[in-house]
Amino acid sequence: MNQAAGQIWVQALQLQGAPAAPLDGLRFAVKNNIAVAGCSSGCGNPHWASSAPMELDHAPVVQRLLCAGASCSGTTWMDEFAFGLAGENPWGGSPINPTVEGGIVGGSSSGSAAAVAAGWVPAALGTDTGGSVRVPASWCGLWGWRPSHGLVPSSGVVPLAPSLDVVGLLCSRARVLEQMAAVMAGGFSPARPVRRLLVIPELWTLLDADAAPVLQALQAFLADQLGLELCSLPLSALGLANSDALLNGFCALQWAEIEIALAAIPPDLPVGPNLRANRGLVAERDRSHLPGAQRLRQRLSSALAEELVDAFLLQPVTPGIAPQRGSLALDRQRCRVIPRCLTLNALAGLAGVPEVVMPLAELGGAPLALGLLASRGQDAALLQAAVALEQCG
Amino acid sequence: MNQAAGQIWVQALQLQGAPAAPLDGLRFAVKNNIAVAGCSSGCGNPHWASSAPMELDHAPVVQRLLCAGASCSGTTWMDEFAFGLAGENPWGGSPINPTVEGGIVGGSSSGSAAAVAAGWVPAALGTDTGGSVRVPASWCGLWGWRPSHGLVPSSGVVPLAPSLDVVGLLCSRARVLEQMAAVMAGGFSPARPVRRLLVIPELWTLLDADAAPVLQALQAFLADQLGLELCSLPLSALGLANSDALLNGFCALQWAEIEIALAAIPPDLPVGPNLRANRGLVAERDRSHLPGAQRLRQRLSSALAEELVDAFLLQPVTPGIAPQRGSLALDRQRCRVIPRCLTLNALAGLAGVPEVVMPLAELGGAPLALGLLASRGQDAALLQAAVALEQCG
Repeated sequence: MNQAAGQIWVQALQLQGAPAAPLDGLRFAVKNNIAVAGCSSGCGNPHWASSAPMELDHAPVVQRLLCAGASCSGTTWMDEFAFGLAGENPWGGSPINPTVEGGIVGGSSSGSAAAVAAGWVPAALGTDTGGSVRVPASWCGLWGWRPSHGLVPSSGVVPLAPSLDVVGLLCSRARVLEQMAAVMAGGFSPARPVRRLLVIPELWTLLDADAAPVLQALQAFLADQLGLELCSLPLSALGLANSDALLNGFCALQWAEIEIALAAIPPDLPVGPNLRANRGLVAERDRSHLPGAQRLRQRLSSALAEELVDAFLLQPVTPGIAPQRGSLALDRQRCRVIPRCLTLNALAGLAGVPEVVMPLAELGGAPLALGLLASRGQDAALLQAAVALEQCG
Repeated sequence: MNQAAGQIWVQALQLQGAPAAPLDGLRFAVKNNIAVAGCSSGCGNPHWASSAPMELDHAPVVQRLLCAGASCSGTTWMDEFAFGLAGENPWGGSPINPTVEGGIVGGSSSGSAAAVAAGWVPAALGTDTGGSVRVPASWCGLWGWRPSHGLVPSSGVVPLAPSLDVVGLLCSRARVLEQMAAVMAGGFSPARPVRRLLVIPELWTLLDADAAPVLQALQAFLADQLGLELCSLPLSALGLANSDALLNGFCALQWAEIEIALAAIPPDLPVGPNLRANRGLVAERDRSHLPGAQRLRQRLSSALAEELVDAFLLQPVTPGIAPQRGSLALDRQRCRVIPRCLTLNALAGLAGVPEVVMPLAELGGAPLALGLLASRGQDAALLQAAVALEQCG
C-alpha cells in the first residue's frame, strides 16, 4: 500500500470501528501528529518517530470516530513537525497531488489530503494552524473543515501554536464532512439564521490573475444559492489597515507560540532545511511586535464577531491552483504564494472562527476552492451550507 | 444577590436552559473568563471589563449546558486574569469561604467555588491552568473536575497558558459532576478497567503535618473501596529527580506561555499588585530553562501514560485546609503554601491527564480533599469512581 500510493502512508492499519454504529463502513486516515494507539506520533521526521514512545491511547477525536463506527486505515505523512504549507517532506514523505499534473499537494496535512484525493479513503484527519487543512483541501479539490478553535478535542495531538491549532477534516464529499464533524466535535451549538454573505475585497486582490475571475464569478452565484444578500466588508472595518497587517499580526503570534513548541525538539535531532530555516526565523523574531499583534487580534475578533452575527464570510483559501513541485523554493520574494496563503487563512485562525473549504471551481482541470467562515461555534450552520452547495452544484 | 453572597457574582443572570432536557432544573455559575452572551469577559478586572466588548455568543461549553437543560445563574469573580491560587482580588471581588472561618476560598475560580460552597448553585464552571479549579474545590469541600487537556471546548475562553488551560467544573455532588461533565465534553471515551491505585510518596511529604495522617489514612481505605491494589510509584519512575524538578518544569512552561497572554493586556490598564508582580516574574524569567522543561514534560507524560494504563493515581491537591485570609502575603519563603499547591497540581497539567478532586475528609471541621488522576481521555472512568466513593462515603 505504501509503494502504490506514493508516500502517503506512514503506517497502514486496519482499526475496525464499532459495528452497527452510524459511521459503519466509513474509513479514515490520521495525520501522524495525532495519537493512534500502537503507533508513534512521528510528525514527519523518522528520527523523531523512532525515538518517540508508542502511543498507548488513541487521541479522543480518533476514539470518537472509532466508537461511531468509522475505521482507521492508517497514519499519514506530513510536513516535518507541521511546519509548512507545501506538503514537501525532506525524508521521502512527499505525496503526489492526483488532481494536478506535477502539482504539490499542499501541507502540512499532505498525506491526509493525498489519501482522500487519490481515493484511498473518503476522509482524513489533519491539523490546521495557519492553513494546514485548508490549503491542501483547496489544492486537491477536497471539502475541508477547520473547526471553531477549541471545539474538537486537541488531546493527544502534538502542539505547534496552541492558540491557533485545531484538528480538522478533509473529505471527498460535503455530506461525509458534516457527518464526521458532528462526531468529532461531540455535538454542535444550534445553527442561527444567516442573512448576509460578506466578502472582503482586499483579500480577493491576493488571487492569481487567472484564478480571480473564476472565483469572483462565484460570489453572486453562491449568495443566490444560499439565499443571502452579498455585502462588501472593508478590512478597515475589522481594524486592519491592509492585508499585510493581517499577515504580520498572525505571524507575530504564531512565532511566539512556535518558539515554545520548537523547544520540545532536541537540538541534535536531524531535521530538514525548512525546519532549520524556521528555527532561524524564530531565533531572530522581533518580540516587540507581540503586544500589538495581541491587540490586533482582540480588535479583529470582536469586530468580526459583530459582523458574523447574521452573516457568513466568503473568501479565497489559496491564491490559485496548486503550484508545481519544486517551484516554491525560489518563491519567497517572487510570487509569494505561501505568504498569500497565510494571509488568506489568518482570519479564521486569529478570530478562532470555523471555516469550510469548498472545491467549487476549476482552472484548466485543476481544482479551485473558496472558504466560508461563520462566527465562533456556528460550525453546524457552515457545514449545512456546504452540504446545500454540494447538492446544488 | 451580589451583596448577600459576598463578592461572588459579577453579574446575576437568569438564562433559562432548554425545557424538558436532561439537566432541566439544574443551575450553574460561570467564571468571568468564559463567554456568556450579553456579558463582557471581565477576567476579575473592572477596567478590563468596561473596555472589553460584550460577548455576542456563549462559549460552546456554556451553550452545551443550556441546550442540555441547565440554567445559568450568573458570572463570578475570579483572581485577576486568572493569576493566583488564593482567590483574593484587589478590586473588591474576594469571596468568603463559607466552610472555613476566616479562610480563603482559593482561586483563581474563586467566585465559582464560593457560589457552590455557599449553596447558591449546585455547580459552577471554572478554568484550571495550574490548579485554579482543583485548589478552591479542595479548600471549599467541593467535587472538582479538571478534564483531559483539550477535551472540553476552550472556544470563547480567555487563554492564560493554552497548553495547560482547561475548562473545569465544581459541584456539591459527585453525581452532578459526572452528569454535567459528560455534557461539557460532548461524550467520553469508554472507560477501561483499572487494577491498581498508585501513590507517589514524595508528593505526600508536601502535606501539612496535621493534614498528613488524616489523608494518608485514606489511601488503603479508598483502594479497598475501589477494589484496587495500592502501589507505590517513586517520582524517579517518571524521570523526575524530586518534587522541585516537577515544580520548576511546570513553571518554566507556564511562564513561557503566560508571557504571550500578558502581552494581550494593555500596559496602561490599572492592575493589582499580584498581577504587577507576575509581570515582573515573566520579564525576568530565564528562557534557557524551556527546552529542559519540554523534555521533562515529554518524559513524564509518556512514563505516566504507561503507569496509568491499568491504574489511577491518588494524591493530595493542597497541603492542607484553607489558609487564613491575608496569610499568604508573607508566605512565599515560609510555609510555601502556593508553591506546594503548584507542585501537587503540576502532574495533571504537564501530562494533560484528567483529575477529580474528592472532598473526602476534614480537619477541625474544615474540608480536606484528595485528587484522583487517570490516563488521557479516561475522564469517564474517573468520574464513575468519584460517584462510587460519594455513595460509599
